[in-house]
Amino acid sequence: MSDLSALVLPHIAKLHAYTPGLQPTESGWVKLNTNECPYPPSPRVAEAVRAELADDGERLRLYPNPKATPLRQLVAKINGHGLSEANVLIGNGSDDVLNLLVRLFGGPAAATGFMLPSYSLYPVLVAINDGATTVIEFDRSMKLPVAKIAASGARAFFLTSPNAPTGVAFTNAELAAVLDQFPGVLVVDEAYAPFAEQNAVPLLARYPNLVITRTLSKAHALAGIRVGYALASAAIIELLDRVRDSYNVNRLSQAAAFAALSDLGYYDAIIGKIIRTRDYWVGEWEEKFGWFIYPTQTNFVFAEPKNARGETGPAVAKSLYEFLLSRKILVRAFPSHALTAPFLRISVGSDDEMFAVNTAFEAWLAT
Amino acid sequence: MSDLSALVLPHIAKLHAYTPGLQPTESGWVKLNTNECPYPPSPRVAEAVRAELADDGERLRLYPNPKATPLRQLVAKINGHGLSEANVLIGNGSDDVLNLLVRLFGGPAAATGFMLPSYSLYPVLVAINDGATTVIEFDRSMKLPVAKIAASGARAFFLTSPNAPTGVAFTNAELAAVLDQFPGVLVVDEAYAPFAEQNAVPLLARYPNLVITRTLSKAHALAGIRVGYALASAAIIELLDRVRDSYNVNRLSQAAAFAALSDLGYYDAIIGKIIRTRDYWVGEWEEKFGWFIYPTQTNFVFAEPKNARGETGPAVAKSLYEFLLSRKILVRAFPSHALTAPFLRISVGSDDEMFAVNTAFEAWLAT
Repeated sequence: MSDLSALVLPHIAKLHAYTPGLQPTESGWVKLNTNECPYPPSPRVAEAVRAELADDGERLRLYPNPKATPLRQLVAKINGHGLSEANVLIGNGSDDVLNLLVRLFGGPAAATGFMLPSYSLYPVLVAINDGATTVIEFDRSMKLPVAKIAASGARAFFLTSPNAPTGVAFTNAELAAVLDQFPGVLVVDEAYAPFAEQNAVPLLARYPNLVITRTLSKAHALAGIRVGYALASAAIIELLDRVRDSYNVNRLSQAAAFAALSDLGYYDAIIGKIIRTRDYWVGEWEEKFGWFIYPTQTNFVFAEPKNARGETGPAVAKSLYEFLLSRKILVRAFPSHALTAPFLRISVGSDDEMFAVNTAFEAWLAT
Repeated sequence: MSDLSALVLPHIAKLHAYTPGLQPTESGWVKLNTNECPYPPSPRVAEAVRAELADDGERLRLYPNPKATPLRQLVAKINGHGLSEANVLIGNGSDDVLNLLVRLFGGPAAATGFMLPSYSLYPVLVAINDGATTVIEFDRSMKLPVAKIAASGARAFFLTSPNAPTGVAFTNAELAAVLDQFPGVLVVDEAYAPFAEQNAVPLLARYPNLVITRTLSKAHALAGIRVGYALASAAIIELLDRVRDSYNVNRLSQAAAFAALSDLGYYDAIIGKIIRTRDYWVGEWEEKFGWFIYPTQTNFVFAEPKNARGETGPAVAKSLYEFLLSRKILVRAFPSHALTAPFLRISVGSDDEMFAVNTAFEAWLAT
């Protein structure tokens, strides 16, 4: 054979893979690094999976519904605003949906846009597709640069709202201002929207170039089943279906997701609890420690730790990260960007987990 | 916004999606169109999924193991021949693995090769990646044209063995002859290898340009969970991991697949039963009806029906297809290629299903 490096496509040969958060397999960790939900999913989820299994898993021998039709219908219904099945695509996690969107719009001569800092998967997906990029940097205010996005020249622009890792949400007025001026497709990645005051669904009817992506991994406590979805015009959904794997979502996950989205009352309660926990600790850490924290509308807190000498910065954040790690507390650091390196992102956990983090913060401040 | 057609990539705008086999949602069908297993999966599968669920599905709130490490280790072990975890990648179905392979090697200036007829997903995956193709046609003998493949100029060549929809297997001697001469990557898609006399695993140590793909959808009765895998050199697996979604296989499917592959004795028994059923009906239909059937090493039968007047051909196959459909029996027709249009592909079902098909064949012959 030829050398492998001569066979692989050049843009793949120089590709750096996405680095997911650590997923330790041993127990004993306080795991606040990947924005998972600290509470179990709706009890209907396990019931629905057991029902799909029946006695002996007999139904698993059959392919799943290729379009996840019942789930598309339910997603349309719960999102309201006149959406129908034709406006919904179900993905193997919202990462699957994001990947399909890049494959539609992002190529060497068709730039894909995104903000920095935001979800670090976007540039990886674009690089896998050998795509050009247009990157717009936030400044420390984290305000949305509407005019810059509108003038970015991107075919598709990916915007995380509320943003990760900052937690800052953009209003529908800001999004509408982008949509009024931007000639491309605006993808609003609403992974954290269930924790926010607003979401962009009401804008869909007015803007055929708006795509909203969602996940069941965060607010629905189902990171383990890999289900996400897109809401968009029927024309965009039809294009996504062309590049989607026919059987991208398995039977058990379809059943689990359907059950979860049929029990929104359960989730309202846990989302409310997570928001109260979040707001309590944001208040504590701002007041007690004097830390700067961006106003968050997510299930995480992006905090700039200040040490006992009143110092902030990348080295201080790293020191706290490592102190937490030594106590088996996992949070997330983002050292590769100047605006994020002085911060740590702490997922909102259970009361016990948050007390443990707070205790560790106090111990670190006392070192 | 601009017109959507001006935003979408040109190769996507002209793309035709893959057409999966019909998956009827209502009951009452004899479903022999997508080569599913007529028997349930190992009872350990449902047990393992229930164990992963525990009481309340609590663990589903957490992301799955991003590399499916325990499953990689088990797949390496059961395939033997010195394979280790580093030689294994787990996919969301083998279609996921095939897609990742195309993304590594197939571009506008890097042709991907495949045979016609074979698995009709390959050209769709290549088209999604805007890739050039090199297509080699079988003749009616369905013999492997070794020299043509070797001289195809493809960066990667996808070969289904045993082939679909014909059922014809290629020997390791034939594959080695290709590998000795072909300078690209040879992907041997072994979706049906558990039903065959040989598989290509013993060749892996000798040929770093060989990739084998497998699925649990057919022989393991798990089409519903979407798990497949690749076996290859560590260098190729490392490249695949760069383009793979970090969480491509969900928790429940990882648990189910692990349980299935831990119970190979169960599958030996049902594979044996399927082979006996297949060989019995191939013998019957050849002898009783005088139909031509390619020698099959799969869980399906590719038969050229001959009507009561002794005629064969696309119209005859279509007539039988529609007759079966009217009796709620689903098989698969391949009308788009001259070599396949006179044939029907019948998945090997349970004894009851095969008797029902046979009865329908007799009724059709009596019309």
